[in-house]
Amino acid sequence: MKLLEEKILKDAKILDGNIIKVDSFLNHRLETDFLDKLAMEIANYFSGKGINKILTIEASGIALAILTAVHMDNIPVVFAKKARSKNISAKVFSSKVESYTYGKFYNVTVSKEYLNSSDKLLIIDDFLATGFAMEGLIDISKQAKADIIGLSVAIEKGFQNGGDNLRKKGFDLLSLAVVDSIENNTIIFRHL
Amino acid sequence: MKLLEEKILKDAKILDGNIIKVDSFLNHRLETDFLDKLAMEIANYFSGKGINKILTIEASGIALAILTAVHMDNIPVVFAKKARSKNISAKVFSSKVESYTYGKFYNVTVSKEYLNSSDKLLIIDDFLATGFAMEGLIDISKQAKADIIGLSVAIEKGFQNGGDNLRKKGFDLLSLAVVDSIENNTIIFRHL
Repeated sequence: MKLLEEKILKDAKILDGNIIKVDSFLNHRLETDFLDKLAMEIANYFSGKGINKILTIEASGIALAILTAVHMDNIPVVFAKKARSKNISAKVFSSKVESYTYGKFYNVTVSKEYLNSSDKLLIIDDFLATGFAMEGLIDISKQAKADIIGLSVAIEKGFQNGGDNLRKKGFDLLSLAVVDSIENNTIIFRHL
Repeated sequence: MKLLEEKILKDAKILDGNIIKVDSFLNHRLETDFLDKLAMEIANYFSGKGINKILTIEASGIALAILTAVHMDNIPVVFAKKARSKNISAKVFSSKVESYTYGKFYNVTVSKEYLNSSDKLLIIDDFLATGFAMEGLIDISKQAKADIIGLSVAIEKGFQNGGDNLRKKGFDLLSLAVVDSIENNTIIFRHL
């Protein structure tokens, strides 16, 4: 998506360790009209596919998910919670996820009340790098016997392979921008 | 707001300790069209007051905040982060907040890049009980020398006094529903 690529080139900061900092518009300060355009793009791509629920993860997936839901006939959104506790309630689906940035493990949990086998899911997040968080959401969806119709993220870091692994497994993954590499502080996008 | 009161009576669960569980529509599963109606009510109430930014806190304030922002000419939203770390960067405004539910302290932080003295803020959260989280957001706003035009929450637990304390301090607080007491598992609302 050209709009997002231009925005990244204009506003993103590149930190040590190939971290792309986009907290000026995507995950700390939220640029409402811009996020709404991303949401519309996602909604258009997945329209007509029978999706009846969006699954995302706290905190920075929530804004993009709810705006997308508005453009998909106001379908509900469920956001998974991150729990550090070792004691996970029997009332939730949970999946253990490694945090690449922090090197720690956390549990992604969703109440069993809010995911079930009649769900046709679109899973949304702001970022996809290793794909560990997305794999956790997929694991939970499978535990609930829900159908996963598609996955979407704003920014995929192509060089960390999470997205390619998901595509190889057959998932319909829409990444609005794919960063293929960062060379000398310059971001190179992937185009198919 | 009658719509929210009816929804609470219909869908909320009352747990031990006077906890009102509304995660079926407000803070785990998000009922998109319903939240959008709450957002419209907030936007209407504060329209024409020169608000140029919404401040909220992760995770469950984000959905209501971004939907309200859409109805306020797409103004930006900044969501404060919750940090447990004792080492807080000099690049953020931070305020120490007690979690009433968990009895622990955490820091509310916002990057200094995203709040400043030209801001006219509406502060939004899903719940207001003791008001500790809201006080943290107010503290941060004052550190940034921003103007606080108003505060809004979906549900105020009137019997925990956080809302009344804020009103006494002169804040324009819009609570879409105020629960005054819970008696024999029945929720009693406050009406002015």
